[in-house]
Amino acid sequence: MKVRIEKNRLARYLSLLQTVTERKTLPYLSHILLKAIDGKIYMAATDLDIALEVQDDVEVIDEGAMTAPARRLLDVVKEFPEEEIEIKAKNGSFLCVTTGNANFELPSFDPEDFPLPPPSDDLEFQTCNRDVFRNALRKTSYAVPSVESPLGGPGLYWSFEGGNIHRFVGCELNRLASYMIVADELGMSQLPFNVMIPQKGVKELLKFTDENEYIELCLTELGLYARSNKMRLWVKLLEDYFGFYDDLVLPKRSYGVNIPSQDFKRALKRMAIFTDQTWKYLKMHFEDNSLFLEAGNPEIGMGREKINVEYDLKPYIASFDLRYVMDAVGVIQGEWLRFEWDEEAPGGIFLDLEDEAYLALIMPLVVP
Amino acid sequence: MKVRIEKNRLARYLSLLQTVTERKTLPYLSHILLKAIDGKIYMAATDLDIALEVQDDVEVIDEGAMTAPARRLLDVVKEFPEEEIEIKAKNGSFLCVTTGNANFELPSFDPEDFPLPPPSDDLEFQTCNRDVFRNALRKTSYAVPSVESPLGGPGLYWSFEGGNIHRFVGCELNRLASYMIVADELGMSQLPFNVMIPQKGVKELLKFTDENEYIELCLTELGLYARSNKMRLWVKLLEDYFGFYDDLVLPKRSYGVNIPSQDFKRALKRMAIFTDQTWKYLKMHFEDNSLFLEAGNPEIGMGREKINVEYDLKPYIASFDLRYVMDAVGVIQGEWLRFEWDEEAPGGIFLDLEDEAYLALIMPLVVP
Repeated sequence: MKVRIEKNRLARYLSLLQTVTERKTLPYLSHILLKAIDGKIYMAATDLDIALEVQDDVEVIDEGAMTAPARRLLDVVKEFPEEEIEIKAKNGSFLCVTTGNANFELPSFDPEDFPLPPPSDDLEFQTCNRDVFRNALRKTSYAVPSVESPLGGPGLYWSFEGGNIHRFVGCELNRLASYMIVADELGMSQLPFNVMIPQKGVKELLKFTDENEYIELCLTELGLYARSNKMRLWVKLLEDYFGFYDDLVLPKRSYGVNIPSQDFKRALKRMAIFTDQTWKYLKMHFEDNSLFLEAGNPEIGMGREKINVEYDLKPYIASFDLRYVMDAVGVIQGEWLRFEWDEEAPGGIFLDLEDEAYLALIMPLVVP
Repeated sequence: MKVRIEKNRLARYLSLLQTVTERKTLPYLSHILLKAIDGKIYMAATDLDIALEVQDDVEVIDEGAMTAPARRLLDVVKEFPEEEIEIKAKNGSFLCVTTGNANFELPSFDPEDFPLPPPSDDLEFQTCNRDVFRNALRKTSYAVPSVESPLGGPGLYWSFEGGNIHRFVGCELNRLASYMIVADELGMSQLPFNVMIPQKGVKELLKFTDENEYIELCLTELGLYARSNKMRLWVKLLEDYFGFYDDLVLPKRSYGVNIPSQDFKRALKRMAIFTDQTWKYLKMHFEDNSLFLEAGNPEIGMGREKINVEYDLKPYIASFDLRYVMDAVGVIQGEWLRFEWDEEAPGGIFLDLEDEAYLALIMPLVVP
């Protein structure tokens, strides 16, 4: 194997592949596969649950395949003194990156042993609206727990409901983020089944949507497949947990206040100074056309702020985990956000006034 | 106490004070002292071994003194929504930072309990050349160990020798960095005694030289004092250990090679890719007007580079800890550096061809 490729292009691909690799268990999972064939380079990384494949045109001098430790190859490429890089095999057991004065050799496994994802060539893919899909992932992934919670698995729940609604839900014990979008807007018809995408898979999917403007998706029992012109991603799915999200989300909230997003976010950042690992409270108090925020205790210090809002009904006071509030409003980009509540309904709800698909529910803490 | 001060000026002072504080032992060591008097604010931080004091003109509305947790006050000030900040005492037990819509209260100890450094008003200070002093600290501090080594205490050794030489030495088991400068250039006459400055004190002194163009120093049995227009630093000194540095440094090295600094530093960065926590070797091999560099092993991968130099005498091969070499040459700013060695003398020596005062000695490792 011997190919020539520009440094920056190779570095970009390796950065993407590198996050998929797994360095703690089997040594060859920290490697990527490189294959040169037909004027193209094909590269793949996997941790056995996720696989990312990249393919691009390069100058192929000799066809062949090798593996190399992803992190180290990326380091070599980033620090490489020339703009064009020549990569070649040496004795089948080393991958060499060479210039006139420098020679870098990285160990290679037998490329035949490299574990590949289940093939996707014969599958039927659906085009999906990249921006909408990315929004759905971005606005729900923050609430995906890293370990299983009583409410569901450590993954993002994606279901198809009522004949034309895609629902994405990230949920853990005290909070939930939901994104509901009609099939037409997502550009996808129904799902073959409801799915749970593991946390690392959600992160890789998000990066996939950052990298590619055009995306096709396919769901099979073997996993979720995403593909674009140059990249393919495979994510093994978790077992399908059904959560009773409607009980939490659907009850009508009679009270609601619009809040200027930027002022609120900046105030939260200051309130965060008055929290620590154990003391996490943010007190929200609506009264007299004001939102009063409070955090802290006499030992840490106290932060108090007032934001003008339109609300003159009966006072509402509740305390939330400040980090959860920051996460929930952090993904809201509109000028105004809305907070809603009701004595009869659980928790408080944050809405994005410029993106109706989004909803974040946070359960209150005992008021300190 | 009540003062008004611009946000950025206060934030800068708090950043400096904050690194001196100590958050792990006594709670009040994580606080700074603030005192408003005579149109000035006076602030101080200490960990009992180091004290930094800052004094500057501000609008004093009410005189008085308070303490406040340094880190948290800095966070409040940095995030503060206005450009001018009003700080005032509340009941003597809280320090308040306030605007129209926001109020932040931080706990205060009794300012009378705040530990102050030994007073320096009656001491005799010597002006010192800031740039030279900073260079001396910068080019030796990297070799100061954080714990005691068989060769000396965990500090920077500063001695006055031969009637007109100041010598700064950082030294641990396998390396030494030395800076020797005549008294006139440093702008200081003799020392009352040889001193050992602890590692944290060296760091604070370095920052002090970054902040102040004009510096005066004074050494007493109670410690090293540095002062400028607005700042004063006190550092308690370690017990004086004498090291037999001359045996290591003085022997003549018969062989030497000039090396282009930038090429060498960039090559070292690439070689570093082929080291890890246990495998630290850099092999340096001079022969045939070339410096051959090599790092790594078949498992990590191998990096090899060649740099053209003027040397055609008998081959020299030695291995060093790559991190030590990077530290030693990292502080060299000249276009060329020099490496010297001799069979009869210990280790290899790096010199800065544009700063004769500097010398770095590194002991070789067993060649793998």
